[in-house]
Amino acid sequence: MAAQTAVSEVDGANGRLIYRGGYLIEDLAPAVTFEETAYLLWHGELPSRSTLDALRHEMTAARRLKEPARGALSAMEPDTDPMDVLRTVISAQGATKALAKPSVAEAVALTAVIPTIIAGAYRRRRKQDLIEPRDELGHAANLIWMMEGKEPATERVHWLDQYLVLLADHGLNASTFTARVIASTGSDLTSCVVGAIGALKGPAHGGATFAARTMLDSIGSVENAEPWLKEAHARHARFPGFGHRVYRTYDPRAKILREMAKTADPKLHAVAAHTEELALKILHDEHPERPNATNVDFWASVVLTGAGIPKELFTCIFATSRVAGWAAHVLESMEDLRIIRPASVWIGPEPGKKPLPVEQR
Amino acid sequence: MAAQTAVSEVDGANGRLIYRGGYLIEDLAPAVTFEETAYLLWHGELPSRSTLDALRHEMTAARRLKEPARGALSAMEPDTDPMDVLRTVISAQGATKALAKPSVAEAVALTAVIPTIIAGAYRRRRKQDLIEPRDELGHAANLIWMMEGKEPATERVHWLDQYLVLLADHGLNASTFTARVIASTGSDLTSCVVGAIGALKGPAHGGATFAARTMLDSIGSVENAEPWLKEAHARHARFPGFGHRVYRTYDPRAKILREMAKTADPKLHAVAAHTEELALKILHDEHPERPNATNVDFWASVVLTGAGIPKELFTCIFATSRVAGWAAHVLESMEDLRIIRPASVWIGPEPGKKPLPVEQR
Repeated sequence: MAAQTAVSEVDGANGRLIYRGGYLIEDLAPAVTFEETAYLLWHGELPSRSTLDALRHEMTAARRLKEPARGALSAMEPDTDPMDVLRTVISAQGATKALAKPSVAEAVALTAVIPTIIAGAYRRRRKQDLIEPRDELGHAANLIWMMEGKEPATERVHWLDQYLVLLADHGLNASTFTARVIASTGSDLTSCVVGAIGALKGPAHGGATFAARTMLDSIGSVENAEPWLKEAHARHARFPGFGHRVYRTYDPRAKILREMAKTADPKLHAVAAHTEELALKILHDEHPERPNATNVDFWASVVLTGAGIPKELFTCIFATSRVAGWAAHVLESMEDLRIIRPASVWIGPEPGKKPLPVEQR
Repeated sequence: MAAQTAVSEVDGANGRLIYRGGYLIEDLAPAVTFEETAYLLWHGELPSRSTLDALRHEMTAARRLKEPARGALSAMEPDTDPMDVLRTVISAQGATKALAKPSVAEAVALTAVIPTIIAGAYRRRRKQDLIEPRDELGHAANLIWMMEGKEPATERVHWLDQYLVLLADHGLNASTFTARVIASTGSDLTSCVVGAIGALKGPAHGGATFAARTMLDSIGSVENAEPWLKEAHARHARFPGFGHRVYRTYDPRAKILREMAKTADPKLHAVAAHTEELALKILHDEHPERPNATNVDFWASVVLTGAGIPKELFTCIFATSRVAGWAAHVLESMEDLRIIRPASVWIGPEPGKKPLPVEQR
């Protein structure tokens, strides 16, 4: 046990995800936007109409890049990994003269600016000029707007926004734990978020949605699912999007995304649904004792595709969502700050046995 | 227990610090430079003359900033916290097109470039032009050279270099643990180092050397030590530089630095020695059961002062040293990579009890 938390609870045995305040994800998600979810995670209750308006105004004001961030972004090579761009530019955006204690205001500012950075990285990859955010658009809509320069269809915004709601927090996952360890030294929120972005980048964490989509791309058609999976299984390859460290049953977020995928991308949904069925069968036949349930990354990859997000941005979009949870955990940990410094077990040689090489002296 | 390690062992009960290969810090430090120490931590043995030469060449080649890093540095406000500059610019320097597995080559490159970034931050604070590194100078000497543009006296280089040797690793401290958590997702070494820098920034971790020096500045003279400490104690202020989570006895690094401080800065040493004596007495009188030993930050602040390092760079200099350990731990963890995702205890309300506000639906 590394922390007590009231931000979220992953009840893996029962396949439940509980958000702050005691909301089951399947009850909450259909009723809220990402902005409301972030507010809930930071404050412990859903916003009223007027506090939500205030949050939206705050986010609008914080969406523009400061000069250091703008300079860092324009200095990056255009084909840099977008997660490396995000890590660098948000570090510049959050840089200060003196150490600041983590605050909700800073959480709002860092959350608000991430889509601006991601869209900037995306446009620079395509050698296109950056597009400024639009004040009247919400968070998800602004991301697509700044990427494309066209006002996105309501459905695309809704799919993206629901993804952002569903992924916003998930107990002490590795990136959130990273943020809490950094916070435990009394460091600032930007440092926590920058560190968490680095952890999320790993293929065993945020990188898994990209891997799931890459598999679906490689399968390509309903007909090819069976030969592809059998071949991959024969060479002991893992199936991205299956298995989870905590859930023993179907991930409740995956269930919601699977349903949404039907309308978000019917063609990819068909391939994915058949792939899922076969993959679960293959995995179950081999290890009937293991809970080889589909995880959130699998269906997230289909919904994000339907929302028109290019797969090289999937991990960045994950960060767009999870930053709400990272900040909530850091703010919660401020209430009882103790440095996280675990014990280790020494497996090296006993000291004093090996003389220093004479050459060194 | 969060990890097994053969990189270093803090034997707190006996006041011993063991570096990789089984070397006691007090045996190793007088015999090696920082470059040799880094090699030892990465490879498990001290370098031969020729492998050390090869390492020095590699570091020389990696000391210059790449264009993205140069651009990020010049975009930062000159009065930005140097740790924020370091966090941002090293993120830019280590950015890549595709995910790279942590390697010794990357460890060398990131370690080599840190002094360039720190000196750059320092010169920009003073509105001075940046100074390029000099190929024939070692790591510690280059740092002072790039800060001042003058070849530093041998003693100053020696004091700084010994500090870098002594602080290079220290078990699973919070920044090293941060690096290991990030590495556990399969992320890259730059992400690990950037996250660790964020953790080191905290006042309860790397920020403590600055705090110790600030206390000594405030005390100012041998005569003022007693009234200052008594007054601070009366208002329940903590004494920076005293107490440690692991050592139950005198920190072996503090012992070495205390001795070095006599020649590095005799005047500050006199104030510090008297301060130490009184502080230990006050702390012991209040809690005779507690091991209130002087920690490394206290005497490091005197030695770094003697080496001519301005105190606003102390935490950055700590990072200059500890990066060797961060990289060694990440490389070690590659041998058996498992995601670090600890359990948490839910202290929020049971789900389903609280209806969603009607307004939200």
